[in-house]
Amino acid sequence: MQVARLDSLLVSALPNVQYLTGFTGSSGSLLLTPALASFFTDSRYDLQSHSEVKCAQVIIGKGDAVMAAARWGSAKQLGRVGYDSGALSVDQFGKLREVFAGAGSASKAKTRLVSAAGHVEALRMVKDADEIELIRKAVHLGSRCFEETLLLLKNGVTETELAAEIEYRMRLYGGEKTAFETIIAFGDRTALPHARPTSRRLKPNEFVLFDLGVILSGYCSDMTRTVFWGKAPAKAKAMYKAVLESQLASENSVRAGIDCGTVDRAARRVLEKRGFGRYFTHSTGHGLGIEVHENPRVAAKQSAVLEEGMAITIEPGAYIPGVGGVRIEDVVIVRKNHGEVLTQTAKSLLEL
Amino acid sequence: MQVARLDSLLVSALPNVQYLTGFTGSSGSLLLTPALASFFTDSRYDLQSHSEVKCAQVIIGKGDAVMAAARWGSAKQLGRVGYDSGALSVDQFGKLREVFAGAGSASKAKTRLVSAAGHVEALRMVKDADEIELIRKAVHLGSRCFEETLLLLKNGVTETELAAEIEYRMRLYGGEKTAFETIIAFGDRTALPHARPTSRRLKPNEFVLFDLGVILSGYCSDMTRTVFWGKAPAKAKAMYKAVLESQLASENSVRAGIDCGTVDRAARRVLEKRGFGRYFTHSTGHGLGIEVHENPRVAAKQSAVLEEGMAITIEPGAYIPGVGGVRIEDVVIVRKNHGEVLTQTAKSLLEL
Repeated sequence: MQVARLDSLLVSALPNVQYLTGFTGSSGSLLLTPALASFFTDSRYDLQSHSEVKCAQVIIGKGDAVMAAARWGSAKQLGRVGYDSGALSVDQFGKLREVFAGAGSASKAKTRLVSAAGHVEALRMVKDADEIELIRKAVHLGSRCFEETLLLLKNGVTETELAAEIEYRMRLYGGEKTAFETIIAFGDRTALPHARPTSRRLKPNEFVLFDLGVILSGYCSDMTRTVFWGKAPAKAKAMYKAVLESQLASENSVRAGIDCGTVDRAARRVLEKRGFGRYFTHSTGHGLGIEVHENPRVAAKQSAVLEEGMAITIEPGAYIPGVGGVRIEDVVIVRKNHGEVLTQTAKSLLEL
Repeated sequence: MQVARLDSLLVSALPNVQYLTGFTGSSGSLLLTPALASFFTDSRYDLQSHSEVKCAQVIIGKGDAVMAAARWGSAKQLGRVGYDSGALSVDQFGKLREVFAGAGSASKAKTRLVSAAGHVEALRMVKDADEIELIRKAVHLGSRCFEETLLLLKNGVTETELAAEIEYRMRLYGGEKTAFETIIAFGDRTALPHARPTSRRLKPNEFVLFDLGVILSGYCSDMTRTVFWGKAPAKAKAMYKAVLESQLASENSVRAGIDCGTVDRAARRVLEKRGFGRYFTHSTGHGLGIEVHENPRVAAKQSAVLEEGMAITIEPGAYIPGVGGVRIEDVVIVRKNHGEVLTQTAKSLLEL
């Protein structure tokens, strides 16, 4: 707040509220003033907020939590108030301004709203030891769900059924929910990086791609594995090998002090050398934590520098339209001299 | 658009985009100009958008779909452009204004951004026959998942396990995902209207509350049932009966032409008469469709008038802190002279 020259901070984006207070409900806001930290929610979360929020006083209001904070704060001297301009809608901002304008004459120091976008997100990029352990547990749960579901592969099973089996296990073993819509793709559908599961049935001799994430104790996992149902022909093996070497090269490049563009380059260079460069159509990875997509972006020309404690995915792929695709993805923690791969699931090509 | 005196409309809220175009992906926008309808997404959704979007030209852009629409539109004469002020962030709006300002001199008629919040949402309130059939199918799927999971009740089962079993079936039978976080609560936890499932184990002689919704073919279901595990004591039976009578009275009040406050009143009056008025701490219901919470709100003093084809929930409840709660919820279609209850699951108290 000092760096951004803010006197107060109104936090409304829920992942930021969770990061700063521990609150995991669906409606909450945090107001930091020079004197006090105050958390706002509604009566549905009375018990839950009192048990989760330890660092701020809890105020149970009515309706929208941001407006409850604004009404409460309008009687105080807030000075320059930072707000989440990236998460607040134009309509909410208009109402916020009205609340503070109405109270303007009453407070000695004038309240001024200034954008504070990205400040909390920047703090969230570097994870502390407790957060890393939570991510590790989520990653291990993801691996367990994947490995158990692998046993259910058979001719005729549908993509949707496998997604159901994976998500069932996520829940059964204590996960709160999926971190994103589970991707299961068979055969030529593996060439769609963003395939939504369908009633397509598994046939002999095709790739099966799994991309899954679970939220456990508030933190996300994210993993992708591609296996072959049958005996893989030479072309499929060559594509898989190129993606795996790309993924390993990129992981091996990770350490504190290098920039994200270099990590992306490490993955891309291998695929280009193997003739798959033009089939690698997305970026190499992304940060993750409370949200499954956080900063930094691990993509071409990104100059952001990796710091110890950042959690990122490394997930190169190759997709040949009409034929099929391969993607391999791990979660990696940035350490001083290396990248610590949290994902323990094997990566050699499985022919099942 | 004529009523709101708009020349063009930039639709960015995804449920509105889905309603107007059929697109179900996670990034898309729609720009309606006097001459043309144009849909914008990125390369991940190339195939999907071409198959789903029939009423507009599809333009595959880079990055944020709203900005892609703005850049494309900045070269056109858009006049007064409505935008989703309730769904666009302050930062996005700032970028939007820059894009249009930069192009201002080139276009003959000046582009002016005006709030168009709520216009598409108002259209969405009244469902056509096709939409009602989709909601009916989602509701029936919800009932099926509930009834199958009821068979799994046993001493020692956890709330989380039952949630996993329900969500597994939603997926297995073709649902895209849950419409909201499944609520399963045992015993005194049924007094929390918004209970998140925990590892709490089922014991003899307690209430079990299920509140679940599934999204099937883009439309939501929402249902709540409360059953008794064991032989219900007289007090529990009395509370259940009061909530059921309240729920039936409210459903029986539904028809085109009456206001939402009256429907809420019908539920509340019964609970007050039975001595449970102060334990009914939330509103009676809400519209649902593409989103699980849509207009109209069925709450105290709401003057919005029900129209034929609206889809609403009716879900009164009573919650005694430290003791337990009961809620019963159906989806109801507003017809000319009555409310058509879509939820077929029985409502008499089940003692299991």
